[in-house]
Amino acid sequence: MEALKKKILEEGVVLSDEVLKVDSFLNHQIDPVLMEHIGTEFARRFAEEKITKVLTIESSGIAPALITARELGVPVIFARKQKSLTLKNDIYVEKVYSFTKQSTNEITISKQFLVSGDRVLIIDDFLARGEASLGLCRLVEKAGATVVGIGIVIEKSFQNGVNKLKEAGFRVESLARIASLHQNQIQFAE
Amino acid sequence: MEALKKKILEEGVVLSDEVLKVDSFLNHQIDPVLMEHIGTEFARRFAEEKITKVLTIESSGIAPALITARELGVPVIFARKQKSLTLKNDIYVEKVYSFTKQSTNEITISKQFLVSGDRVLIIDDFLARGEASLGLCRLVEKAGATVVGIGIVIEKSFQNGVNKLKEAGFRVESLARIASLHQNQIQFAE
Repeated sequence: MEALKKKILEEGVVLSDEVLKVDSFLNHQIDPVLMEHIGTEFARRFAEEKITKVLTIESSGIAPALITARELGVPVIFARKQKSLTLKNDIYVEKVYSFTKQSTNEITISKQFLVSGDRVLIIDDFLARGEASLGLCRLVEKAGATVVGIGIVIEKSFQNGVNKLKEAGFRVESLARIASLHQNQIQFAE
Repeated sequence: MEALKKKILEEGVVLSDEVLKVDSFLNHQIDPVLMEHIGTEFARRFAEEKITKVLTIESSGIAPALITARELGVPVIFARKQKSLTLKNDIYVEKVYSFTKQSTNEITISKQFLVSGDRVLIIDDFLARGEASLGLCRLVEKAGATVVGIGIVIEKSFQNGVNKLKEAGFRVESLARIASLHQNQIQFAE
């Protein structure tokens, strides 16, 4: 998606060979016009999939997921991240390891919002090692629902998340694919 | 706002005299069509205020704030909640006490996204005792920027937040104002 790549080149800050900061339009400040383009593009790519719910994870996934859901005419759910919970009966819980923070969080969804028969599109802001996306997939499967695809705003193609998701059989659509951040240079894939 | 009140009556769950749960359209699952109406209404009410930034707090404020910002043609920033931080130079930090969770969080914004001269509209999902909104106001003032108003999706008018904000001189616009949750009945103000 050209508008997104342009924005990444103009405003993205390379912090290391592995870390790209896009706080000016996606992860802290958000550009609402770009989110419209992003959500519309995800909806276009998954238009044939008879999606019934969009699922994301707080907080940076909410903006692109909201627009995607509006375009598809379905609700969006955001999974919550929490440290650790006392056992509860009304939620699905999965553990997700964060390499960035080197800690394990639990992510949760209320059982009432994800049911057997749901066809779910997962949207997230970044795909690196795939831990968050895989956790969301496991939540969907616990509910007896189907993951029809995963839409990613920025994929770091040089990490192994995208391969893990594809090997697990999931369709992944990434709007920007970064091949390398080596030597402070943002190189897109292809 | 009639569409919002109708939704609250249909789907809101009264958990106690003080707690209303709206997880089906605002705080966990989100109704994108309702968010369009909400954001458009906030933008209409504050249209004359020459707003330069919309500010909210993760996570439930993001959806209504995004649409408001798009309608006003400005960026949206979401403040982050964190447990406690090592001191950093590039962020503004405020402490916010949560009566619900009975704990104090720090909320933060990067200095680069809020600057002197900014005219800021604060958007939040709920107004109860006003601690979160007041914390956001203090962040704006630390940046030397101006709070031009506070837009609230659901105000619990029977708690003292709205009065605190008005006494501090802030304009508050709430789309639904709840006078009482007594005996499991949702009563709107006026």
